[in-house]
Amino acid sequence: MNFSSKLLENAVNEMSQLPGIGKRTALRLVLFLLNQPKAQTIELSDSLLDLVERVILCENCHNISDAVICEICSNPKREKSLICVVEDIRDVMAIESTSQFKGLYHVLGGKISPIEGIGPQELKIESLVNKVENAEIKELIFALSSTMEGDTTNFYIFKQIEKFDITTSTIARGISVGDELEYADEVTLGRSIVNRIPFEQSIKG
Amino acid sequence: MNFSSKLLENAVNEMSQLPGIGKRTALRLVLFLLNQPKAQTIELSDSLLDLVERVILCENCHNISDAVICEICSNPKREKSLICVVEDIRDVMAIESTSQFKGLYHVLGGKISPIEGIGPQELKIESLVNKVENAEIKELIFALSSTMEGDTTNFYIFKQIEKFDITTSTIARGISVGDELEYADEVTLGRSIVNRIPFEQSIKG
Repeated sequence: MNFSSKLLENAVNEMSQLPGIGKRTALRLVLFLLNQPKAQTIELSDSLLDLVERVILCENCHNISDAVICEICSNPKREKSLICVVEDIRDVMAIESTSQFKGLYHVLGGKISPIEGIGPQELKIESLVNKVENAEIKELIFALSSTMEGDTTNFYIFKQIEKFDITTSTIARGISVGDELEYADEVTLGRSIVNRIPFEQSIKG
Repeated sequence: MNFSSKLLENAVNEMSQLPGIGKRTALRLVLFLLNQPKAQTIELSDSLLDLVERVILCENCHNISDAVICEICSNPKREKSLICVVEDIRDVMAIESTSQFKGLYHVLGGKISPIEGIGPQELKIESLVNKVENAEIKELIFALSSTMEGDTTNFYIFKQIEKFDITTSTIARGISVGDELEYADEVTLGRSIVNRIPFEQSIKG
């Protein structure tokens, strides 16, 4: 591409670092911003900086949060003895939008995936096991996507906690095998939380 | 969407103002940035701010530029008597990448479009007419897209300048190089027959 402006070229190059945004799309987005009032670009820019500078992970559930303890964990109405184990914030958002779950979450930050070099140490598994050991937790719901990596992660965690007196379950297989949680429809996802089944049963079938 | 973080929600909302970026895509882009080193977001943010704060339009051709007179207009090797009239910077970039044009450009900033409320006053037409009147210009090449709006704009400009001693031309319309005749649309194929060129000329270019 022959840019007539270094500033434009820089902006397009930076924008095209985003996933799924090629050079042409980046140019379209940047020219769109140039045609809008300056305030829009300033707000976009500020909101991104604010996010990366100030956002933190909740100390309890490791979800993305504005405070040390997130809104969900600090809500007195939520059942603290019920914990739903998920991969990332998109899964929390998906489950929250069903309004079917009243417990807390535990965000692992990914799944065990040797191919991508993600082992148990890269995930928030140790703090989950500590939680099960030290807090009064009755039930752990596994809500990872039902892929090879998700199942491996479920099983790894299950092995670590089976010695404790705790119920484990997985969300019902209403969700198609291989589908990502974030794209599931709310009714299916909601029912699959209500109809969760014991973990032992899930690995048999 | 149930965001657990106001900062995240803001960033997603701002990102989804961009054309073709919905809420889900915006969330994916923002979470991607959160997983990258902070420096990447800072660079993206800075490059956008730099662009909207510092970029200007070239005084001569109205193209996006870092300086008062852009690189093309200030290049002594370019033919100043030959002017190509285009819609926006993307057209300049497209023509520049062919390396076939050695004149200057005049960027209108759009096409006359009553439906979108764009009249001749919104475009850089007056300065083009002034240029034709006052500068030594031999030829004006119309390179607007051949739509209703493009043709209207061409005709409007032509009416303003026909009293001056100047050659006007439009870029050739025809079958793309490499295209099969049988799949070409009738209008294009018809024009390419009517406006045929000497064979000797075709093998030169």
